Amino acid sequence: MSIETILQGVKFDEKGLVCAIAQDWQSKRVLMVAWMNAEALQKTAETGFAHYYSRSRQKQWLKGEESGHTQKVHELRLDCDGDAVVMLIEQNGGIACHTGRESCFYKIWQNGAWHTADPVLKNEADIYGGKHP
Amino acid sequence: MSIETILQGVKFDEKGLVCAIAQDWQSKRVLMVAWMNAEALQKTAETGFAHYYSRSRQKQWLKGEESGHTQKVHELRLDCDGDAVVMLIEQNGGIACHTGRESCFYKIWQNGAWHTADPVLKNEADIYGGKHP
Repeated sequence: MSIETILQGVKFDEKGLVCAIAQDWQSKRVLMVAWMNAEALQKTAETGFAHYYSRSRQKQWLKGEESGHTQKVHELRLDCDGDAVVMLIEQNGGIACHTGRESCFYKIWQNGAWHTADPVLKNEADIYGGKHP
Repeated sequence: MSIETILQGVKFDEKGLVCAIAQDWQSKRVLMVAWMNAEALQKTAETGFAHYYSRSRQKQWLKGEESGHTQKVHELRLDCDGDAVVMLIEQNGGIACHTGRESCFYKIWQNGAWHTADPVLKNEADIYGGKHP
């Protein structure tokens, strides 16, 4: 698979990043949003597994490299202005969030407040053994 | 509805923005990704219709104010680190993209190239009558 072609039409921002949304390929639930630089996008296309760029750690990473919660990419789409991608992914372990929940979007706005709506499926300490995601 | 409370736990970036994803409330298709400032997020919660912040025009806007393609919000969620929201929305007219397509994510990565996958449902000129979205 060409890893150069994929950059055509992609408009990275002033930090060299695009927004990347991971959506469960079956339920279509949005599991997380993160960032990709050119290398992460290329690696994602090349390997078929989601790679992101960590702004805090300033490096590209394979999602699940420590937790095992990898994301196999079934479909990759780019938006009209080229600054965001959506992936339909198969979430290994059923957990995308570093808090041990299925999705990072577990806070729901109801009756004038944010409520935690989803259960923790696995404790953070058990996922990472004390390491940072 | 309290419009102050909604800002609690939301972490706006250095430009005062959070990433906002609009997903069809029934098919769960991701229709678009844009940005919200505090005012847009508050207006969204207050009115029940998606408001965004345009980085190019540097102003808050009601999605659909010119096109009529408003987005009625059925559910609003915030992610673990508070810098992104996902909305389940009802897309008026069935068109979210300024190109006249259902979704902004109409380019699909297949066989080493980006392909346009979705039809134009309405011409841009007919949507905006020559005006900018």
